[in-house]
Amino acid sequence: MSSENSVGVVAPQRAHFNEPLTLKSGARLPGFELVFETYGTLNAEHANAVLVCHALSGSHHVAGTYADDPESIGWWDNLVGPGKPLDTRKFFVVGVNNLGGCYGSTGPLSINPDTGKRFGADFPLVTVEDWVAAQARLADHLGIRTWAAVIGGSLGGMQAIEWSVQLPDRIRHAMVIASAPKLSAQNIAFNEVARQAIISDPDFHGGYYADHGVVPTTGLRLARMVGHITYLSDSQMAEKFGRQLRHGEHKFSYDVDFEIESYLRYQGNKFAGYFDANTYLMMTKALDYFDPAYGYEGQLAAALARARASFFVASFSTDWRFAPARSREIVFALLHNRLHVVYAEIECDAGHDSFLLADPHYHDLLRAYLENIAV
Amino acid sequence: MSSENSVGVVAPQRAHFNEPLTLKSGARLPGFELVFETYGTLNAEHANAVLVCHALSGSHHVAGTYADDPESIGWWDNLVGPGKPLDTRKFFVVGVNNLGGCYGSTGPLSINPDTGKRFGADFPLVTVEDWVAAQARLADHLGIRTWAAVIGGSLGGMQAIEWSVQLPDRIRHAMVIASAPKLSAQNIAFNEVARQAIISDPDFHGGYYADHGVVPTTGLRLARMVGHITYLSDSQMAEKFGRQLRHGEHKFSYDVDFEIESYLRYQGNKFAGYFDANTYLMMTKALDYFDPAYGYEGQLAAALARARASFFVASFSTDWRFAPARSREIVFALLHNRLHVVYAEIECDAGHDSFLLADPHYHDLLRAYLENIAV
Repeated sequence: MSSENSVGVVAPQRAHFNEPLTLKSGARLPGFELVFETYGTLNAEHANAVLVCHALSGSHHVAGTYADDPESIGWWDNLVGPGKPLDTRKFFVVGVNNLGGCYGSTGPLSINPDTGKRFGADFPLVTVEDWVAAQARLADHLGIRTWAAVIGGSLGGMQAIEWSVQLPDRIRHAMVIASAPKLSAQNIAFNEVARQAIISDPDFHGGYYADHGVVPTTGLRLARMVGHITYLSDSQMAEKFGRQLRHGEHKFSYDVDFEIESYLRYQGNKFAGYFDANTYLMMTKALDYFDPAYGYEGQLAAALARARASFFVASFSTDWRFAPARSREIVFALLHNRLHVVYAEIECDAGHDSFLLADPHYHDLLRAYLENIAV
Repeated sequence: MSSENSVGVVAPQRAHFNEPLTLKSGARLPGFELVFETYGTLNAEHANAVLVCHALSGSHHVAGTYADDPESIGWWDNLVGPGKPLDTRKFFVVGVNNLGGCYGSTGPLSINPDTGKRFGADFPLVTVEDWVAAQARLADHLGIRTWAAVIGGSLGGMQAIEWSVQLPDRIRHAMVIASAPKLSAQNIAFNEVARQAIISDPDFHGGYYADHGVVPTTGLRLARMVGHITYLSDSQMAEKFGRQLRHGEHKFSYDVDFEIESYLRYQGNKFAGYFDANTYLMMTKALDYFDPAYGYEGQLAAALARARASFFVASFSTDWRFAPARSREIVFALLHNRLHVVYAEIECDAGHDSFLLADPHYHDLLRAYLENIAV
């Protein structure tokens, strides 16, 4: 069902880019396609465009619904629409499925023109830098010279940071939510468990599972389960599930005893039913590799010296995946460069996934910040 | 190599118990065996015995080395020995492999007399309560009416708590380290991921892998990897590994990029080479089920009303698996019952695994407490 103030029925679009793209890894894509959606209208000055960047499992479908599926509400529909914080009466909002994704943009599921079969493991690893380069092509295609804002949560926030340093004159506001300037060893460790779960699934076939007519669902399911734990806060899990028993008593078996087990299995199964394993692997690597300070001896302030944008940075009190301290690292580096930054540490019980929710304090802040952006 | 002040070369012993044991699940073991080790000498009054309870992957081999393997140092060798905090010149120390374990006590790897094959999945689920009942048989066998102390870390600490309520007149001191009165939803969630990794391994064969001549190493490896993340602190991981690259550069592949990946894979592979999958599953369930307040409407203080022991409770500042707040729940419930309790919250960087280390403040506290125990 479409929510109140929805952008309504939307349809994805597709852009072809025929110029080759050399990736961070050195691999070269002869050309590629991106699937995207837009909401609102680009103004005469082309000054009101906002790019929404998705995180690990998101897509170009940010807001609204599809005509043939009223349940297909966009993943950030609570944020984007007429009268919503990212107001489509003011802004022209663009959602894009990133390169390497599994929702229609060129990626491991695409047909490799060299072989006539799906790329699978032959699709090169793509990084946050590569995504921004590809998104810039989309901006050109749409006639957007400069984004009013680039906004994203988690891995999406990293893309906003990357825009600010890679193409500093093409972004006026970077909105970085529940993000981090780089992964910690613990973050990488969780990603590595997820990857090993997928890679060690006998149905993975070295990434060429499509050629075998199978999908490594067992590995994907485990990967999502472990990921999901890191998206929720300990306190929220305690509140939502606690030690509630599914059947009112201990079963003394390996069936579901506790509600949290049932919930995790459900989330894992659901995800394994629609997400592509090679894309998942690639997304976790994009996360691991992201580190703008890498070429600056670890000095984030030096890395951000090129940035010209104004920043909105927000973190959530119970987010232990990318804790508030990680956002503060970004803020300190921005202040060091005398860049304009609004930082909010929001009390919210929902952990990392808070960025997807319509917490009133959080949305009020977003609304206020976005209202002040000149278009 | 044997450490300084080692108990030296030791040898495991074995006790047979022919009387049936009815488990918490309702299942009945017609008889069982426990493998154990002892260090020091039981005094004339039989008043100096200390039981060391192991955690998830521990064993009866607490201290010393084996004659045929000088590298086989006991898992708590830094604590137990002449002149060490748990001083074997004063105490008679007992280590035991718990029922259902995979180091020689009756468990899933044992031969089921009914079938002539290994129990495998037919071995019943065993709980912390069952372990204490079995350990009490061992105490009888050794002529120990009352333990001077029962000590353990993590799941081992839960056994010390259980002793204090199940057999309150047979324990004088309960030493509960890096433990919790019950698992949180998040704790259970991590266990569930580990279980699903094992159960969904095609080599698991519903727990009857021994009959197929295989071992579900892939699942065990993943289970250990995810477990290991929860044993270490974020800060220690950052300090030990940070974002150090294995090969000095990003490889743009799914081989090892970061040192933390290499470390986790190593830990997972090592563990999968020696631990039994059915025992691992059972251990995680024993953890999930432990909840002395379960029969007392969740009131821990009511559950502990039967306890008569004095308590030593310790937690570690960077332990996020069983954070200090979880130990404080135990302390509050003990104080509510006007029981004697010494509580220490120890600053240590090593997370949950701190309880295994020889942190000087921690060991000094243990030493002081144990010195005051009359024998």
